[in-house]
Amino acid sequence: MNNNDVSIIGAGLIGSLLGIFLQKRGLSVSVYEKRPDLRLPEYAPEGRSINMALSDRGWKAIDELGLRSLVEPYAIPMYGRRIHDEHGDTTFLPYGKENQAIYSISRGKFNHMLVDEAEKNGVQMKFDHHCKEINITDTSIVVQNPDGSTEKNTPGVIIGADGAYSSLRDAMQHQTRLNYTQEYISHGYKELSIPPTKEGEYAMDPNALHIWPRGMFMLIALPNPDKSFTCTLFLPFEGAKVCFAKINDRKDLDTVFKTYFDDAYALMPDLAQQYFDNPTSSLINVECYPWLANKSMLIGDACHAMVPFFGQGMNCGFEDCYILDGLLEKYGATSWELVFEKFQKIRKKDTDAISKMARDNFTEMRDSVANPKFLVRKKIEAKLHELYPNEWIPLYTMVTFSDMKYADAYAQGKLQDEIMDRVMDDPTILQNYQQLNYEEIIRQVDTARMV
Amino acid sequence: MNNNDVSIIGAGLIGSLLGIFLQKRGLSVSVYEKRPDLRLPEYAPEGRSINMALSDRGWKAIDELGLRSLVEPYAIPMYGRRIHDEHGDTTFLPYGKENQAIYSISRGKFNHMLVDEAEKNGVQMKFDHHCKEINITDTSIVVQNPDGSTEKNTPGVIIGADGAYSSLRDAMQHQTRLNYTQEYISHGYKELSIPPTKEGEYAMDPNALHIWPRGMFMLIALPNPDKSFTCTLFLPFEGAKVCFAKINDRKDLDTVFKTYFDDAYALMPDLAQQYFDNPTSSLINVECYPWLANKSMLIGDACHAMVPFFGQGMNCGFEDCYILDGLLEKYGATSWELVFEKFQKIRKKDTDAISKMARDNFTEMRDSVANPKFLVRKKIEAKLHELYPNEWIPLYTMVTFSDMKYADAYAQGKLQDEIMDRVMDDPTILQNYQQLNYEEIIRQVDTARMV
Repeated sequence: MNNNDVSIIGAGLIGSLLGIFLQKRGLSVSVYEKRPDLRLPEYAPEGRSINMALSDRGWKAIDELGLRSLVEPYAIPMYGRRIHDEHGDTTFLPYGKENQAIYSISRGKFNHMLVDEAEKNGVQMKFDHHCKEINITDTSIVVQNPDGSTEKNTPGVIIGADGAYSSLRDAMQHQTRLNYTQEYISHGYKELSIPPTKEGEYAMDPNALHIWPRGMFMLIALPNPDKSFTCTLFLPFEGAKVCFAKINDRKDLDTVFKTYFDDAYALMPDLAQQYFDNPTSSLINVECYPWLANKSMLIGDACHAMVPFFGQGMNCGFEDCYILDGLLEKYGATSWELVFEKFQKIRKKDTDAISKMARDNFTEMRDSVANPKFLVRKKIEAKLHELYPNEWIPLYTMVTFSDMKYADAYAQGKLQDEIMDRVMDDPTILQNYQQLNYEEIIRQVDTARMV
Repeated sequence: MNNNDVSIIGAGLIGSLLGIFLQKRGLSVSVYEKRPDLRLPEYAPEGRSINMALSDRGWKAIDELGLRSLVEPYAIPMYGRRIHDEHGDTTFLPYGKENQAIYSISRGKFNHMLVDEAEKNGVQMKFDHHCKEINITDTSIVVQNPDGSTEKNTPGVIIGADGAYSSLRDAMQHQTRLNYTQEYISHGYKELSIPPTKEGEYAMDPNALHIWPRGMFMLIALPNPDKSFTCTLFLPFEGAKVCFAKINDRKDLDTVFKTYFDDAYALMPDLAQQYFDNPTSSLINVECYPWLANKSMLIGDACHAMVPFFGQGMNCGFEDCYILDGLLEKYGATSWELVFEKFQKIRKKDTDAISKMARDNFTEMRDSVANPKFLVRKKIEAKLHELYPNEWIPLYTMVTFSDMKYADAYAQGKLQDEIMDRVMDDPTILQNYQQLNYEEIIRQVDTARMV
């Protein structure tokens, strides 16, 4: 056992990025991944990528490692939401100020690049290596090698970056007093795709995240560099007028799409094939504590898997890596117990906050964005932010375009929400919102902050 | 696959009892247990039994099967709590009316008897059979036989009676959208023992549950037929003045026992050996939903493990069996999907309620019972129950000496608690409690019920 010897489980986005951070600190890092090397040509079938929305917290970690120039060519800026109503009319709602954007990027390509970079830095990337057993007490891993043989390793520490279904967390759940909650939401999702036009162009505005909000369900679309869009359909699994359980054949499918997503439907020539070929996936929220046990620790989705509706899962995991790296800088790269303890204490309330906000944002995305009052509310908030850039920062901006602590953003957002609820209670607000007394609103924020 | 063919996982108290219920319905039941047959002499080392507190809900299931006469010889009635203060003085607090008792019974002996009875009824009891894999989709189990060989079975249904660390629940957690929470309390426990006196008699009153309540921790003792008592010490694991982490040698141990449990200490000649030989165990609360997936279902601790402070874990599991049997009676012994669905819908809110009450009762046991105001409160409640036996039933009585739904008991208990809080707010209550206007108190209950 050597404190310098770090085993990371999982070579996804978080595991690969963390590998780079730790190797750069002079540690000796091995990353075990049960799946085959995702860079092999047979691994990623065409057109089956999922898109991530990279935003400021993610970029901050990328910048810390000096990787921005590698990432940028793959990242398509989305400056706002483009909301599609049932008649095909659209409204554009900026995410922030001019030039503030979130970036659509393919999970597969991004991961490929990070794995390359990790290897370049000396990280041992071990694909097709399956962790069969993890022992928390002696910090050992039994790994099954690609040839089927097994070996037992005893690294200095184990870090589980192995996602929502983490095997390290499973081991902790059975071997330690882990408090643990997993909760599925009633909705599932299915990936679909909008191909480029015959002319080889984007079929819609590429610099927006497209949303078809329909109350209890929604469709979204994010642009890809190959001029296609990856769409995600979110529906209840069952028990609703429109749900996965009630779409059993092409006729059911066509009816739903023609009724609710007609403009998207027109752009999806092979909808039925995609719909019935692609799996329906579920959405889980995971919370647990503690994140560490002896010399093992969880990071990213492994300890705080969240629903995707704030686009923060990856960004939050990258911020985890950035913060962990900062603690290693401060306390020394081998004071693991201290660093792990500090890490979970600092971070838990923030990941609880973003998990909560991600669930809340589902309601906003599928419902409120279709509401005229909501659009006016966003405009008032944008104006307040323009006039008082430090006193009023919209929640979305605090989460997406800043690195303030998620828990502080959540608290500040609640306070602003209460004030905005009162502003919107005025029955004449839709007519008169341009004559508001903004100074008076800001005074309410200051008063509330002092209480 | 045959609907009549039932596999139960776990041959503990619940699995064995359920086996008898189902076999009596004409079903063909196999019970798989990974541990060796607990009836083998080498299995149960002397003096290492845990005591259960059998009460009305448990007896009801036993009576339904006509087993009372088999159980009674092993069951020692405890008519109340005997509270030991720090000077060795004791107070007796009846659990209910005269002759109402809970019964101390050894888990091992009770389990032994139920396994015998299950076999007598034709249940296939398969000890040393380890379920290595459970597949929810095709309702199959891969079992490892005692000789190490494995076989795959496909019963009609699988019922997981395999406790707080259920392997069926694990399979559901990985294969289905199971909402799941496990939470450890900050306290652990350690079994200790008070032997018979030199004269071969009980060292204390055998017809009581003895408690040494000390605020943040406590000791309890239950009688055994061999004139010994099984004691359980509940302490925080760490971070308190008195906790397991701070008892590291005989001197630490003696100091704690002499300071807080001096009268018990005098009765425990081999305390140190027991303390350092016996493991420290943790206490978990488990909640999940749904309890069923396809043709598999959880029962007892597997779906609702609770902390032991209301003495209801086993009783609640037995009531599960009784209710499930009633549904099989009503809907036919092979309408499994319907029966499972009804069962979880009926039962979930009740098991949530008793889990909550069990946690609440920990505070009462270790803290309130040492408080003079609490003793007066109990006396007022007992008097109310005596005067108005149907209008005022103390919570403990509703839970322990009735079969009313746990959720109804919880709601009624909350209502009574609020009224009693107001009664106890009177600063002169300790002096004047015998002159209370009981009729007025009952009128408040009636009014609150109507709201």
